[in-house]
Amino acid sequence: MAAIRVLTESDLRKAVGLGQEELDAIESVYPIISRGEASMPPIMRIDVPEHNGEIDIKSAYLPGYAGIAVKMSAGFFDNPKKGLPSLGGLMVVLDSETGIPQSALFDNGFLTDLRTGLAGAVAAKHLAPRGELTAGVVGAGVQALLQLESLALVRDVARAVVWARRPEAASKFANDVAGSMGIPIEPVDDVAALLAAADVVATTTPATEPLLTAGMLHPGLHITAVGSDAESKQELEAEAVASADVFVCDSIAQSTRLGELRAVKESGMDVAKALELGQVVSDPTLGRVSDDQVTICDLTGTGAQDTAIASLAVRRCQELGLGTTIET
Amino acid sequence: MAAIRVLTESDLRKAVGLGQEELDAIESVYPIISRGEASMPPIMRIDVPEHNGEIDIKSAYLPGYAGIAVKMSAGFFDNPKKGLPSLGGLMVVLDSETGIPQSALFDNGFLTDLRTGLAGAVAAKHLAPRGELTAGVVGAGVQALLQLESLALVRDVARAVVWARRPEAASKFANDVAGSMGIPIEPVDDVAALLAAADVVATTTPATEPLLTAGMLHPGLHITAVGSDAESKQELEAEAVASADVFVCDSIAQSTRLGELRAVKESGMDVAKALELGQVVSDPTLGRVSDDQVTICDLTGTGAQDTAIASLAVRRCQELGLGTTIET
Repeated sequence: MAAIRVLTESDLRKAVGLGQEELDAIESVYPIISRGEASMPPIMRIDVPEHNGEIDIKSAYLPGYAGIAVKMSAGFFDNPKKGLPSLGGLMVVLDSETGIPQSALFDNGFLTDLRTGLAGAVAAKHLAPRGELTAGVVGAGVQALLQLESLALVRDVARAVVWARRPEAASKFANDVAGSMGIPIEPVDDVAALLAAADVVATTTPATEPLLTAGMLHPGLHITAVGSDAESKQELEAEAVASADVFVCDSIAQSTRLGELRAVKESGMDVAKALELGQVVSDPTLGRVSDDQVTICDLTGTGAQDTAIASLAVRRCQELGLGTTIET
Repeated sequence: MAAIRVLTESDLRKAVGLGQEELDAIESVYPIISRGEASMPPIMRIDVPEHNGEIDIKSAYLPGYAGIAVKMSAGFFDNPKKGLPSLGGLMVVLDSETGIPQSALFDNGFLTDLRTGLAGAVAAKHLAPRGELTAGVVGAGVQALLQLESLALVRDVARAVVWARRPEAASKFANDVAGSMGIPIEPVDDVAALLAAADVVATTTPATEPLLTAGMLHPGLHITAVGSDAESKQELEAEAVASADVFVCDSIAQSTRLGELRAVKESGMDVAKALELGQVVSDPTLGRVSDDQVTICDLTGTGAQDTAIASLAVRRCQELGLGTTIET
């Protein structure tokens, strides 16, 4: 008789959040990826064209980790018409030594949002300029908020600017965030104005045409792009990526296939110095070394991060006595 | 507030088995695969070399089906030393219209065993000779039994023979099956003797070297090979596959990568007539048309079958009031 632990979004929200241990858990997987030690197959995608949907499956085995997370992310873009969120998902954790399912995490995408936010903080920790910063976010959704909040874990965010396709969304975001984070935040009229005002920018949109061009870059700027995770998506103009002093991504293979490196390669350009985030975590001198460099980090999201955050969440829930056990 | 239905192996064993509706459910997916209408990405595999294990993930969206199954199969080959079964797994079913997780099926691999058995029956229905038959099974495990029992759904199995690497396993299997199926069954000394005695043969082993050679074939024989599902596995000699009058497989892409077509292609041979099972289901004149043909069917196992059996199992459990609802 086996038993599986069932954890709900509510359990998981009590167990993990934007904390130092979570940040460390996410940061520590990048060197494992970059050293080639993760068993991390390419993302599996099931298209559901009739319902404008897709399911993406990510997973990774990390040596020494007790569990292997298998994450199913659903993006069904007709859902809002039905009063449902577009994005959702769940994770299953299997025991690394026996393959036996240990936990089912019905998180509705919460852990993905969280680890993506934390990944932005890891990038900023090694690449963002220092001192009192102005942060900018492109997009006004959950991930825009998480990028701002995560950045505050590693840098002194004095103020922020936000741009979104719908100005009313940007205004609402600015009001909400000013209240919750206690910093002044202004909506701006266009992406160029946002970049002119900001030291650190996170792009968090599903854009399929670049929003941010090479001409908008300025010395000292750091950009983290988290939106592109499919062949059809692109937030940064290829020239912008190619002109960065340091270009970093979570996985060169994924960024080339699904992220911001795709357009660069397709246009025949090259990136002066393309690194994986794990290389920079292992050797911070590969990251920002001067105040006037332009740095860009492209995050497509990895199964290794899912295994890392799920492992921590399972352990925390266990310590806190959260969840339900089902005899199988 | 969403809710997910949790079904255990015990629930699922009460709900589905080797029945006609189950057989129809499995048969009906093959034409969908062969017409290219299934969204069925290649199998995702996560290797766990430290623990001699792997996790295989299969999935498929089938137009018109209410659910999409994502199946995680675990094979951890040090488990027997720990008193645990090598194979296990679970499935998750997501709603095809919204992507929302509907059910978690903690089946420990039961549904995979079942749909693989039923797939053998679909192959035999279209390819096995008719009349009173002698069935042969290579291997003496769960799948050998299921192949025999499934065959009895579609043909008159008068007697059986069994060969296994360990003779004591074959003897035990023969005793058990004679009791449970009520037919005479004999263990035989080698695969050649098994083929000489049998009209229909199922090979169900994880062999990495061919067990069955071209010289063992005889007119009228049908073989279903269910063992090979990885680059390293092979049950049938390439010459045997190439010399069949009709060669059928569940998916030509998968058989070429992971099944019995791999060795054929690698050796530079060709198969006179390689069909997908769905083509034969749609047009039975493509299957066996005379008593003296040699037919071979290679089954590597598809995500479409998983979606089919999971869909039926979920509906049956619902009708029978089986399972537990978890609010997420």
